[in-house]
Amino acid sequence: MSQPSPPKAAAVVDIHTHMYPPSYVSMLRSRTEIPLVRTFPASPEDPRLILLSSEVPLLLEAESNPARSNQIIPGRPLTRHYSSLAQKIHFMDTHKIAISVLSLANPWLDFLSPAEAPLVAKETNTSFSDMCASHPGRLYFFGTLPLTAPTSEIQSCIDNLSRTPYCRGVILGTSGLGSGLDDPNLLPIFSALAEKNLTIFLHPHYGLPNQVYGPRQAEYGHVLPLALGFPMETTIAVTRMFLAGVFDSIPTLQIILAHSGGTLPFLAGRIESCIAHDGHLFSRQQQKTGGEKRRTLWEVLNTQIYLDAVVYSDVGVQAAVAASSGGERGGGGGGLERLMFGTDHPFFPPLGTDEQGEWESVSLNAQAVGRALGEGTEAAEKVMGGNAIRVLRLVGE
Amino acid sequence: MSQPSPPKAAAVVDIHTHMYPPSYVSMLRSRTEIPLVRTFPASPEDPRLILLSSEVPLLLEAESNPARSNQIIPGRPLTRHYSSLAQKIHFMDTHKIAISVLSLANPWLDFLSPAEAPLVAKETNTSFSDMCASHPGRLYFFGTLPLTAPTSEIQSCIDNLSRTPYCRGVILGTSGLGSGLDDPNLLPIFSALAEKNLTIFLHPHYGLPNQVYGPRQAEYGHVLPLALGFPMETTIAVTRMFLAGVFDSIPTLQIILAHSGGTLPFLAGRIESCIAHDGHLFSRQQQKTGGEKRRTLWEVLNTQIYLDAVVYSDVGVQAAVAASSGGERGGGGGGLERLMFGTDHPFFPPLGTDEQGEWESVSLNAQAVGRALGEGTEAAEKVMGGNAIRVLRLVGE
Repeated sequence: MSQPSPPKAAAVVDIHTHMYPPSYVSMLRSRTEIPLVRTFPASPEDPRLILLSSEVPLLLEAESNPARSNQIIPGRPLTRHYSSLAQKIHFMDTHKIAISVLSLANPWLDFLSPAEAPLVAKETNTSFSDMCASHPGRLYFFGTLPLTAPTSEIQSCIDNLSRTPYCRGVILGTSGLGSGLDDPNLLPIFSALAEKNLTIFLHPHYGLPNQVYGPRQAEYGHVLPLALGFPMETTIAVTRMFLAGVFDSIPTLQIILAHSGGTLPFLAGRIESCIAHDGHLFSRQQQKTGGEKRRTLWEVLNTQIYLDAVVYSDVGVQAAVAASSGGERGGGGGGLERLMFGTDHPFFPPLGTDEQGEWESVSLNAQAVGRALGEGTEAAEKVMGGNAIRVLRLVGE
Repeated sequence: MSQPSPPKAAAVVDIHTHMYPPSYVSMLRSRTEIPLVRTFPASPEDPRLILLSSEVPLLLEAESNPARSNQIIPGRPLTRHYSSLAQKIHFMDTHKIAISVLSLANPWLDFLSPAEAPLVAKETNTSFSDMCASHPGRLYFFGTLPLTAPTSEIQSCIDNLSRTPYCRGVILGTSGLGSGLDDPNLLPIFSALAEKNLTIFLHPHYGLPNQVYGPRQAEYGHVLPLALGFPMETTIAVTRMFLAGVFDSIPTLQIILAHSGGTLPFLAGRIESCIAHDGHLFSRQQQKTGGEKRRTLWEVLNTQIYLDAVVYSDVGVQAAVAASSGGERGGGGGGLERLMFGTDHPFFPPLGTDEQGEWESVSLNAQAVGRALGEGTEAAEKVMGGNAIRVLRLVGE
């Protein structure tokens, strides 16, 4: 095997690409509550992955009507795209992706008991490490933390990950230790991650309570929870972190937000205005001695936050770059250094066409970057791979 | 009084500006559930307006601790900015606003019984009509519908509004007849509005269930429900309308979305991708005979949806214009014709400075338009007033 060498300038890097290692799939098969994997009598060759609470009503309907289970299909097909490394490499080759930074798909280990979580975390992180080692220079990964376990277990996992050659950070959901990422008890965890130079990849899973989608939500498939619930969950989580002062407390903490920050680039101005006009926060600020100037969300977007480019439109890519430049108040510059291409594979496979060919969900995002920044320009190349190589210290084949 | 003449090209028009007529304030004072107005013993000259469910815990705390009610201050001050027409005109003069299109502030008549709603609607719409008539050419208004009343009452109200000289549309919340704006029972109402050339101004009020903000939300003042809950509510409401086919059913329906569409410009690409990749919607589309091509959200953004420019950043203004141009798939053009300046007065008053002077919440939005489109350019003038004059058929002093 040849020595690793620096990747080409125009190398495409996918920083948002998931897998379930085979052991994790086995666990999902054994479960009776979501997340779980089920096979229905009508199509025993087509196991279904049921992840979201919005999918539970259809699951219950399918289970109570086995005869109709070919019409009532809950969740999504669990294809080999989820667990086969050969399939991942094939997908990378098809889409000319030089390097993938793998991560466990949601909901990670959120549902495990304190006793189970460390074991599954170890098993999962070892699987990812082994996969990366089998394709040196083509694969890196974000590890998974056993967040339901005692703090000492979490810290020990961080220590291990920091010594694992191909690990570059951790994927994190929004629940934290159970009450969100603005929980002060998370600060030691965040500090340890920052200290070890492990970047957080923040990813949604829980969306919003189903009631917000109204009585006709089932007619719209998965569109409302996936298209709206996911990005809104991310936005709420990171805004809570910002309001709680997490970024000020740990200025070396680096976080990549999935789906271009959810809706953060578009709402940053409104968030800043609401803070500046809030009577409660204003009097608290007044009471503070010293009167130091508050760090704005724009400044945090320009220093500690990175965004993936999984936003499916040039409108979104442009807004993500502009917001990452520090918006209107940050003095511009730097936004092009902070956006990183991703695919969200194996979610959003093409419908009605060959899953081994090109995926529209990938080309939509690649085209959006090209349209927003110019096809093949230096700016586009940074977003398509250069930024990830720099930020995550990736070394190619 | 001089004859009305066409407003100047550079006239500033505020299409997002609220009032509670005095009769409506009296009603709020008499109520025991939100929305309500309360005066606390510690500051009898400072009535408070309590609107949001997230404000109720503090209200209950203040009521059970009258002695501490100078520290526990729920809601926001109900100043004369809410109900005084002289104050509104002073605000317009201070900010060089030529024309305001007034609307009743949230939550409109959503909480009234079927018997009360038509009476209060009539009283409110008459108040707005009288205010406009007292300043011809400077004031127009969006009317209020008694949505909790029987359909015949709603239709009769629409008829009346269509014959009211200064009325140009109706302000609408997201609850509709009680189950959202994707309710098929609303189609006759929407049809009547379109037929009478009355534009809908869609505005949030309910936000998201408080649970999404976590256990530390009270520390963040009103920021989370206002900065995130409001725009997310609007986005969900209009996406449900789109998925239900409302815009296809009534292609002449015109709707202005508050706060630049909530988050719609940023999420439109993701919504379109989720639709294109949804197995349920895909098989339903396949089953349809005829196989007509689906109208995309980009097309609707470029034909039936208008956005206000209340987004507090040039990042947001740029994204709103780009999305209104039909995004990457609509072939561009037209976005500059679809954005309209607003202030959200009397919400977001300046803190710690004179409320009779300039409001930062206004200048933030005006500056965002100037930065995004160029100060004083034709494009900026369209957004600052020209578009509203054309779309809402406004005639100046």
